[in-house]
Order: sequence, then structure tokens, then C-alpha cells
Amino acid sequence: MNAPLKAVGSQGKVESKLEATMRDIGRAAREAARALALAPAAQKNRALAAMAKAIHGSAAAILAANREDLAEAKSAGATAAFLDRLTLDAARIEAMADGLDVIRKLKDPVGTVLASWRRPNGMRIERVRVPLGVVGVIYESRPNVTADAGALCLKAGNAAILRGGSDGFRSAGAIHAALTAGLVEAGLPAAAISLVPSRDRAAVGMMLAGLDGALDVIVPRGGKNLVARVQMEARVPVFAHLEGVCHVYVDGKAKLPMAKSIVLNAKMRRTGVCGAAETLLVDRAAAKMLKPLIAMLIEAGCEIRGDAAVRAVDSRVKPASEVDWSTEYLDAIITAGVVDGVDAAITHIERYGSHHTDAIVTEDKTAAEKFLREVDSAIVLHNASTQFADGGEFGFGAEIGIATGRLHARGPVGVEQLTSFKYRIRGSGQTRP
Amino acid sequence: MNAPLKAVGSQGKVESKLEATMRDIGRAAREAARALALAPAAQKNRALAAMAKAIHGSAAAILAANREDLAEAKSAGATAAFLDRLTLDAARIEAMADGLDVIRKLKDPVGTVLASWRRPNGMRIERVRVPLGVVGVIYESRPNVTADAGALCLKAGNAAILRGGSDGFRSAGAIHAALTAGLVEAGLPAAAISLVPSRDRAAVGMMLAGLDGALDVIVPRGGKNLVARVQMEARVPVFAHLEGVCHVYVDGKAKLPMAKSIVLNAKMRRTGVCGAAETLLVDRAAAKMLKPLIAMLIEAGCEIRGDAAVRAVDSRVKPASEVDWSTEYLDAIITAGVVDGVDAAITHIERYGSHHTDAIVTEDKTAAEKFLREVDSAIVLHNASTQFADGGEFGFGAEIGIATGRLHARGPVGVEQLTSFKYRIRGSGQTRP
Repeated sequence: MNAPLKAVGSQGKVESKLEATMRDIGRAAREAARALALAPAAQKNRALAAMAKAIHGSAAAILAANREDLAEAKSAGATAAFLDRLTLDAARIEAMADGLDVIRKLKDPVGTVLASWRRPNGMRIERVRVPLGVVGVIYESRPNVTADAGALCLKAGNAAILRGGSDGFRSAGAIHAALTAGLVEAGLPAAAISLVPSRDRAAVGMMLAGLDGALDVIVPRGGKNLVARVQMEARVPVFAHLEGVCHVYVDGKAKLPMAKSIVLNAKMRRTGVCGAAETLLVDRAAAKMLKPLIAMLIEAGCEIRGDAAVRAVDSRVKPASEVDWSTEYLDAIITAGVVDGVDAAITHIERYGSHHTDAIVTEDKTAAEKFLREVDSAIVLHNASTQFADGGEFGFGAEIGIATGRLHARGPVGVEQLTSFKYRIRGSGQTRP
Repeated sequence: MNAPLKAVGSQGKVESKLEATMRDIGRAAREAARALALAPAAQKNRALAAMAKAIHGSAAAILAANREDLAEAKSAGATAAFLDRLTLDAARIEAMADGLDVIRKLKDPVGTVLASWRRPNGMRIERVRVPLGVVGVIYESRPNVTADAGALCLKAGNAAILRGGSDGFRSAGAIHAALTAGLVEAGLPAAAISLVPSRDRAAVGMMLAGLDGALDVIVPRGGKNLVARVQMEARVPVFAHLEGVCHVYVDGKAKLPMAKSIVLNAKMRRTGVCGAAETLLVDRAAAKMLKPLIAMLIEAGCEIRGDAAVRAVDSRVKPASEVDWSTEYLDAIITAGVVDGVDAAITHIERYGSHHTDAIVTEDKTAAEKFLREVDSAIVLHNASTQFADGGEFGFGAEIGIATGRLHARGPVGVEQLTSFKYRIRGSGQTRP
């Protein structure tokens, strides 16, 4: 190969081959974003349909690439859980294509008039949704994120630069080839969805630095280590998901059957999701409910770490340490304590929680409204399970993740949260006095 | 004084006195933010009224403090423009108090239901405005920002940590004392609006690091150097204002009197504001209008830097360099060029502009709608001056600045942009399948 390994960039500094590649990807994405921002909904939908078809048509190639990734990961000694996340099969490919169809059927958010008003001087001002621009997505082993994230960005009119985990490099590449085919078929630029063509981790650092201004936002999809690195290093805004230390508070005015059903679902339906309950708080006035709630959880296979009051009702309860109250177990473990009413529950949640998702179970409207108003979490629920913390369950159709920050996006990040807005002003010659 | 200069903080690391002070301010602000988030509109408005009254009542003390600041700045050789920004007088104090009244009369954004829908399982989901939390404002010489920024944050239910320029340290302190009196009179925590009690620039660095998570967002108010430092160093989100390279495009279908009036206003009403036009683009089809537009600007005292076509109509036009096309002069200078219709104007603006504010003058609806749709700027106007880029002119009542980013806030940052949202879900026992 004659290509030089080093080239002199426009700034006169010596640029590595990867730097040059990433810079080109950034520029091409920025250019594609402009075309996407103006692309009609029908054209984006044609691309999404073609992408789904191409995923089906490339199933053999995707599975072959995935087998190579799996073989390498196995020989490197990956855990069973890791291999499961990495594995694709016919059903998962089907689900990926179905996901594209779901996104295609969503309402196009671009161009929606969010507000409109007339000024005393006669000017009409409109706030209109526009795409964010270029979204960087940094993810780990699940290859399907390639399709999900790319398609969601496309629907919102954004270009996407995807950087998948190096273990799923070949799988992501095969999926990305199908997405590209769909884009091209619909007449959209291939650079609308780019996949970083390198396993070199330095590419992540370059994305976090913003690719010379080409990236508008970065979405990390993965474990706490990845998210923490992205938050620490990113020079561009991040839609990050930190912890979900979610609470269920069972009020004195709760009905036991509903409390049991919500607590069991919130903790045990899936213990590894961010909306899983990690702490159970029971009102002292609900003392009668405490024993059956604890027994139910233990019988469902959940370990309980309790305060003295909880330990007093069941000898199988282990003592809770101070750290337990703010721990996201993501496992069949729950911290449980008794509090004095809704005010004490709110105080506890504000002190130990992570402002993600918290629920109250009660028949008392006043206590419920107080909880909904005063708990400062992205999602607060009355008489419903914390496991509804999910874009699909909100009716968003699809989500790129759940944001725990307070700016721009909070909670599930769906297609609307992947947009910005601009002001359109129509006048008749107005000048400012 | 017996207080130790160094103390050992909770992390075991030796903490300077300033670090301890800033940490305490951060903690107190975080606690105050919780009280403010739940404070009724009437209480916040009582505080704003009391603050305005206290500003009036403290006028003598504020002016005395300001005289000390001015004397120091003069002896340090400050420029006349700098001294003007720093100077307070009876009229400016009056304007500051009036500004608080304007903010008091704004609608309280907290609690507004932004969206509400029912899920097939019967759950009702609401998206509700809540405060952002704690806003850090870093500003320079104008002491009135102390009142404006503190009051706007308060109205949106946020605690504010203000760090004024060291030149206006005493003036800001006297204004802050009045704000504190108003807060306390209304029963709100004094820490709702904190002023950093130190001229040490290290305090800015601590704020940019986020004060141990106490700051949710930072708003820099000042010149390009300040904003650039904040953007470079901040570890928390920033509502920053970079450049306003604003364009007026005069289309072939414009009427000359309106074009003249808008161009003159956009450039010359005030040349130092971010919405001032920096580039004039004239359609080749509007060749007849070019000469009178250029002559008008020159006669109004504006220097013109033009391309060959513009230089050809008036010998007083200087040649424009490549850099001129993307320069924010903030002065009586404009770059002027001839383009081939609205498409070329849009291409030019996308290439050289800063996505701030751009206007088209035309009677052609199609061209106008194309411009409004395709120019990717925070504010796009048809037949109105770019100098309307201002929260007051939008009807926001007050603004903390104009944001040039695309996330969360874009354009004028008023009381609504200083809020976040949360999801409130009301169920009847729903669990997730």
C-alpha cells in the first residue's frame, strides 16, 4: 500500500492515518446532516424501509460476520453473559428489522411548530423543531445498536457516527453495510450513518474531543465504565445514563394486593434494567403490610437488606449498610426500610436516590400528589411499577437510551429528544426602534 | 483570625479556604434549590417585589460601593468603555429595580404541563416543567447582571451562584445584599442567590469544575475570552454565546425602501450587539438596489468591504478578504457581496455564518419560505431586522443571554429555557408485562 501512515493536516500538525479518517468521517457527516435536515419524511421512511429489507437480505452475511466475532471473543475468554450480548441469530436479526419498521412508523418530528405567537409590532414568531445535527453513539458489545441508533438518528434528521465495541466489529460492519444500502437506495447520502472503520480505541478519544466541531452530542450506550469515561472526557454535550437507584414507597393507605404486585414487578420482573427498584420504603403506618411484602420478595428469590424494623419482621433479612441505601444492585437484592409517612419517604429518596425513577403506592390522593410533586426524579409514578421507565412503554416507539441529566433530554431519549429547534420570524419590514 | 487556612475535606485531601467556601456555597445552593423548586409563584413574586424595593432602599450604599470600584478601576488605568460598563447611577439603579418588576410579572414556568397522554394500559403520563436546579453565572464588569441574572434564575425556581468580575466586586456585593434582604423578607433561603465572596480567579475554575456536582449549568456573560475559557474548561453544561456573524440577504424581489430600512437597522442601529448584521448579500437580480444600499451605508458611517461586484458600483468600497466573510466586526463595518439568488445566499450563509441570526428581504413568498426552512440558524427572519435577536423583543420579558449551542437552549435564554422537565405518571396498579 502506498498510502502514507502520516499526513500533514490543515493545521500543519502531523496527523495519524486514524485522525485523517476520523476527520473525513466528521466532515462527511456534517455535510450529510445538512441534506438530512431538509430531507422529506417520505424519503427518510423509504430509507428505513430499504434498510429493514437490506437487513433481511444480508442475514447470512451478518450471521457469518457474527460467528467470526464470537469465535474471537470465545478464544479471548469472554464470559457467557458477554457472549450472549454479542450473539446474533435469526430471531435477533428479525427483531432488528422490526425495530426499523417501528421507527419508520413514528411521526417525523422535524418541522413541528412547538409554539407560535404574534408580537405587538406584527411580527409572527414560531419555534420549530429541527434536527440536532450530528450524533455520535459510542456503544459496546450489542451489535443491534448499530441499526437501532442509526435509524433513530436518521428519523430525527440527524447524521450518526457510530463507534461500536471492538468485539462486535465485524457484526456491526455487516449491519452497517445493510443500512448504507438502504440509504443509497432512497437517495440519501451514505455518510448519514457512518461506522468508525477501526478497532483502535483512540477513535473514541477523537470522538470525545468532538471531531473538530463535527459532533453536536454524544450518546454513550453501555456500562458504567464507558459512561463515566465519556462524561469525564467529552468536550461536547452528552446524553448520559448514570445510575437508577429507584424506590418504591408503600404508603400506609396502600392496598396490600396492589402493593405486592407493584413491588414484585418493580424489583423482580427484570433485575438488570435501570428502572428496577433497588430500595423498598414502607410507611410505619403500613406495618401490617411489611411482613407479607418481605416474605413475598424472599420467596421470589430476592435478598433483603433491611433496617432494624424490617429485620424485626423476618429473620432472613440481612442488615443494610449505609452504602446499601444508595446502591444500584441490578440484581435480585433490595434494600428495605421503614419510614414515617410520605414526607420521610421523600426526604429519604432525595438523600439516597439518583433522581431516575421512583414510585408511590397509595390510595391517598394527597400523599400521591405530594410525592409526584416533591420527588425530583426524571420519572415519578403513582400506583405503577418503576419498570415502566422505558421509551417504548412511554409510547415513544423507540429510544436511544435514558438520560439522567437535566438538560435537553431527561428520561427516555426518543426521536423528539434527538431534535433541537429554531425560531422563524415573519415580518413586513419591521425594524427595531 | 483563628480559622485555619487549610482544612482536610471529606475526601481526605487538603482543601484551601476558598475551596471550603465554594463547597459550602455549592451545598447551600443545592439545598436552597430544593426549597425554591417547591416555592409557590406568589412567594417567589413577593421576594422579587421585596428585592426591587431593597434595591431602591439601598441606592446610596450601592452607589458608594460603585464609587470605590470605579476609583480602583480608574487608578488601574481602565478604558472609558470599561468604566462606562462598570458605572452605576440613579437611572441605572432604577432600571435594575424595574427589571426585577418585569421578571416578577412573567408567568411562572414551573408546573406547566408540556404534554399529557394516556397509554393503552390506562396510565396517564404528563411532562411537567421543573426548575433546572443550580445555575452558575460568571460575568464581567456590569454590576446590574447581579440583579438580572439572580432574579431570572429565582423566577424559574433555580438557585443561582453568581461570580461577578473582580472590578465590580463591591458594587455586586451591595446589590447582592439587597437581593438577600428581599429573599429573606419573603421567607426564602438566602442561599437562593449566592455571590462568590472572593475576587480570587481560582473561584471561577472551581465553578467550571462543577462544585462537586452542585452546579447544573453555567452561563457565561461577557466577552469572547470569558466564553471561550468557560467552554474549554467547564465540566458541566454551558449555555454559551459565541459569535453572531449575521447576514441580511436582499433578494431580487425585494422592495428597495424596505431593503434600505432593514439593512440600515440591522447594521447600524447598534453595531455592538450580537444580532447586528455583519454581512450584506445582494441578489444579482437586485443589481439596481446595490448602489443605493451601499451608498446609504457609507453615508451612515459604515465601512464596506466588498467583492468585485460591490466594488464596481462604488469606489469607496474596500476589498473584502476571505476572513472578512466570517468576521463578527461588532463595529460600523460590513462585508458585502453579490450572490446568484436565494440558493447561493443560503450556501454562503451556511459556509461563512455562525448559525445565529439571518434575514431575507423579499416579496417572493417561495424564496422567503425556502430561506426560513433551509438556513440553519437559531433565528431566521423574513422582512425584519436581525437586531430583533433579543429575548425582550421575543416577548420573553427578560433573558439571561443568547445561546448559540443547539442543545436545550437555542437563541434567547428566558425563564422557560432555565427549566427542565420531569414525567409524572398516574396509574391504577399497572405492572409491566
